[in-house]
Amino acid sequence: MVKYPTGSLSNYTSDHTDLFKLKNNHHKKNIVFSDRGMSLEQQINESNQYYLMQNIAVVHKKPTPIQIVKVDYPKRSRAVIKEAYFRQASTTDYNGVYKGYYLDFEAKETRNRTSFPLKNFHEHQIIHLDQCLQQDGICFTIIRFVSLNRYFITPASFIIHAWNDKSKKSLTLSEIESNSYEIKSGFRPTLPYLDIVDKFILDRK
Amino acid sequence: MVKYPTGSLSNYTSDHTDLFKLKNNHHKKNIVFSDRGMSLEQQINESNQYYLMQNIAVVHKKPTPIQIVKVDYPKRSRAVIKEAYFRQASTTDYNGVYKGYYLDFEAKETRNRTSFPLKNFHEHQIIHLDQCLQQDGICFTIIRFVSLNRYFITPASFIIHAWNDKSKKSLTLSEIESNSYEIKSGFRPTLPYLDIVDKFILDRK
Repeated sequence: MVKYPTGSLSNYTSDHTDLFKLKNNHHKKNIVFSDRGMSLEQQINESNQYYLMQNIAVVHKKPTPIQIVKVDYPKRSRAVIKEAYFRQASTTDYNGVYKGYYLDFEAKETRNRTSFPLKNFHEHQIIHLDQCLQQDGICFTIIRFVSLNRYFITPASFIIHAWNDKSKKSLTLSEIESNSYEIKSGFRPTLPYLDIVDKFILDRK
Repeated sequence: MVKYPTGSLSNYTSDHTDLFKLKNNHHKKNIVFSDRGMSLEQQINESNQYYLMQNIAVVHKKPTPIQIVKVDYPKRSRAVIKEAYFRQASTTDYNGVYKGYYLDFEAKETRNRTSFPLKNFHEHQIIHLDQCLQQDGICFTIIRFVSLNRYFITPASFIIHAWNDKSKKSLTLSEIESNSYEIKSGFRPTLPYLDIVDKFILDRK
């Protein structure tokens, strides 16, 4: 049992894993240094941190909801949760505020090269995006094709439409290309998705 | 050790406690049935549920951030978290979207009758409210004076100003009265705070 008494565990991905990936990628051709073997979640979190520090936007990842059953309060030490369960979330992972706009999005990655399986979404995420759209939020998904090193901002309206088509099991890459905005990965921030959100907001008007 | 294998634990307050309070309040004078011995958090959650069902707004309480250290995956049973710790939140408890506006607020209650101690706020809450204000969010606190059965929507700008005045330890009730909007508790929803948010939005323009 490994104990991490302080610091964040960032959802089971230790920094050592990433360092390892980086080292092993080092001699490969066409290496893109900007994403440094990071997961999409890490890229978004790092970008949100940058946007926050620069007073550009306030976007946070929501914590995973946990149902706590048993907590110990040891003397002279902080509380330890001894029994708890993962609960179903009722929203998407990210929301926040940018220039007065409410942003709400879900981030998904796939190793597929030609399509994005819709089963990557949970029904509660689709319902939540639809509810936020009705309140005039800026709602979208960030889809990363890992093997292609491509990132898309796909409007929630398109995702909801496809989800409701029961005969549809996945979105082809070309469907995504023609219904999304592509994000080019950057350096500061790692994933400059707000540049693309600006375009999305303009087109929406 | 009591096990709650399914259902929500709603922050250590079991429904039995509330039922018990209700029974015991039953013979008291001036009983306000609308709040049924609920905590402010329960009143807001119930109101948010109502607003969501009626397609009026999408506001959720953020889960408490937890740092997970050890998880067991028993066969034929769901994952059990065996060691975890509470983490410091970096935001307020509530945010969401209403008619295109980004809402962000913190809820606080006091048993005091004449003032509200500022130590009820944590620094990270003040910083977060300030960051969201800079992005043009609708930012406020809901303050409940439990003994007076009064509820106020106090703009974040006023709270931040008071917090930054190091000589100030608390807000007097009359300061809150003259810098806030009072919410009258209702039946549907329990705490109709969005009626007041409408006024706040109008005055803000």
